[in-house]
Formats: sequence, C-alpha cells, structure tokens
Amino acid sequence: MREVFQQELREVQDRLVQIAELVEGAIQGATRAFGTSDVALAEQVIDGADEVDQLASELDELTIDILARQQPVASDLRLMVGALRMSASLERMADLAQHIAQLARYRYPESAIPQGLRKTFVKMGDIDIAMSAKLVELLRAQEPRIIDEIRDLDDALDELHAKVFEKVLSDKISADATGVVDATLASRYHERFGDHAVNITKQMNFFLSGAME
Amino acid sequence: MREVFQQELREVQDRLVQIAELVEGAIQGATRAFGTSDVALAEQVIDGADEVDQLASELDELTIDILARQQPVASDLRLMVGALRMSASLERMADLAQHIAQLARYRYPESAIPQGLRKTFVKMGDIDIAMSAKLVELLRAQEPRIIDEIRDLDDALDELHAKVFEKVLSDKISADATGVVDATLASRYHERFGDHAVNITKQMNFFLSGAME
Repeated sequence: MREVFQQELREVQDRLVQIAELVEGAIQGATRAFGTSDVALAEQVIDGADEVDQLASELDELTIDILARQQPVASDLRLMVGALRMSASLERMADLAQHIAQLARYRYPESAIPQGLRKTFVKMGDIDIAMSAKLVELLRAQEPRIIDEIRDLDDALDELHAKVFEKVLSDKISADATGVVDATLASRYHERFGDHAVNITKQMNFFLSGAME
Repeated sequence: MREVFQQELREVQDRLVQIAELVEGAIQGATRAFGTSDVALAEQVIDGADEVDQLASELDELTIDILARQQPVASDLRLMVGALRMSASLERMADLAQHIAQLARYRYPESAIPQGLRKTFVKMGDIDIAMSAKLVELLRAQEPRIIDEIRDLDDALDELHAKVFEKVLSDKISADATGVVDATLASRYHERFGDHAVNITKQMNFFLSGAME
C-alpha cells in the first residue's frame, strides 16, 4: 500500500512540475507580449490558460481519487491537501499571466506600458519568470534552499510594485488615464503572481520539513 | 460512524456560516469606510481580517482532522475538499475587504473615490454586501435558488466593473493619477470579491446536487 502511495505521490509531483512549466512559459510569453506589444504572442498566452485549467482540474481529480483509495493520514494526508492548494495557486498564476497578456492585446497597437515605467515592468516580468522557473526546480528537486530564493525574489517584487505606484503618483511619468489603469493592473497582476509562488513554497516547506522529520 | 460524520459536517457548516458572517461585516464596513472616508472604521476592518484568517485556518485543521478520522469517500470526500476550497475563498474575500478599507485609510482625509464614480462604487459595494449576505443564507439554508441569485448579482457587478474603466478612460470624470489608481484597484477588489462568492456557489452546487442524488 505504502509503495503504491509513493508511486502515486510521484505522479502528483510530476503533474505539478508539468503545470508549473506551463505557467513559466505563460508568464514568459505574457511579459514579452506586454513589453513588445506582440498581439499574436498575447493571444497564444490567453489561449494557453485553458490548458492549465484543464490539467489542474485533472490533477485535482487524481488527488481526490488518491485520497479516496489510499485513505492517507497524518503527513501523507497533508501532502494531498497541499497538492490541491498548489494546483489552485498554479491555476491562478496562469490566469494572472493571461490577464497581463490581455492588457497587451487591449492596447494594441499602442503599448500598455506608460513612458518611464518600461524598465520597472521589465524587471517585474523578469522576477516573475525567475520565480516560476525556481518553482519548477523546487517542485522537481525539492531542495529547501530554493524556497528562500523564491521568497527573496518576492521581496524584490513587492518593492517594485510599490515603486510603480510611487512613479505613477509622482508626475515623473507621462501617462494618461489609460496608462495609469494599465500600470496599476499590470503591477497588481505581477505582485499577485509572486504571492501565489510564495503560497506554493509554504506548501512545499511543510512537505519538506514533514519529510525530514 | 455515519452519524458522527453528519454531526461533524454540521460543525463544518456552522463554522463556514460564522466566517461568512464576518466576511459580510467586513465588506459592509469596508464599503462604508471607502464611501465616507471613515478611517476608524477602515482600521477596524483591517484588523478584523486576522480573525477570519485564524478561523479559516482552524476550520482547515478541523476538516483535515475529519478526513483523517472518518476517511470519507465519494461525495462525502468531495464535501470535505469543497469545505477547504470554500474556506480559502472566504479568507480571500476578507482580504479583499481589507484592501478596500486600506485604500480608504491611505487617502484619508481625502476620499479614495474620484468625482463622478461615487454612485458606481456605492452600487458595487451594495452588490458585494448583498452577495455576502446571500452566501451566509446559502451556507445556512442550502437552497439552490440562492446560487442563481448570487450569480445574477455577479453579472451586475461585472457590468459595473467594466463601467468604471469606461468612465475613467472617457475623461467624463475628473480624476488625477491617484484617483485613477484608487478607482482601478477598488473596482478590481470588488470584482474579485464577487468571483470568490461565485466560486463558493460552485462548491455548494456540487454539495446540493450531490445531496439530491
């Protein structure tokens, strides 16, 4: 029984890695589409979110199925609950990448990025991409040091999020109402993306400290 | 065993109702604080979100404990997973009410609401309050008709959300960058609040259709 459970746990892990890889691709595409007003790429990211939804639902079904058949208790049960929570966060991260791509599409052929904020959004995008790459690594290699790396990236992201508002409100940038709306939403989406990455590290932290006990 | 499970299920339900009532109070307070720049009320809502976090965590612990002890399968198992998801949505709704209250606090003694959008935000707030009141009713009375009522309210909310952007971008309102940022964020928070209410109706829909099978 235990061996079967271990095997099923690996299947859950593999699927989480697979979904995290799609999320990484989505935020890469969304960041590039947003930065370069690439509407074809934006469409691709928007369509891609459905695949993540589908895979996350299937993973949830598998997890509930394992719960029903294996009846895990203690830390194994918490792992399964953690998998449900990680899948929900990954699904939400794909939605947020989709929202960023939608901003690029709405404003096309204009840019969604107000003058003076381009560099800040490039940095935010790069951090989200780095976080999602590290999530893939964390889910695959399960090394605790990656948790700290992701949290450090989230701190840097929160600073940039605050900086966007500071700049928008300081008249240092020339933005009309559309630019301010886009900057506000894009910055919020990037920040939430990071929050969900941190949520996943919390689940993994339990997983890893539980496994080490 | 079945009887004990039914009793524990009622305990989960009671706690969901209790948390939903706090969420209703939070969005009521946040809406009033936002509309009237009542900073004392805003502080109260901001502090109150911690209580919801605490109760939601305790409910999650109870749910995981029931899963471990009762080992439910089939629809009972799905109910427990649904309870975890509902608790996550309620927690998030309290966070969103907190964010709305924070906007009121940041701008105090100014108003966070740009001229020309006051009525729209009063309507959005009223709809969120109505949705949360109906959630309490749904969780308590478990009547399927309430699900449709909540979804209709969400449609109305989405229309108002679109209207906020339309107004902000149309130069029909006089708003500086601060006003545009606040309107964008507040509208987004209200809309997400509604989305989470709808998420809960999805879980309850399963619960009710499962119970009727």
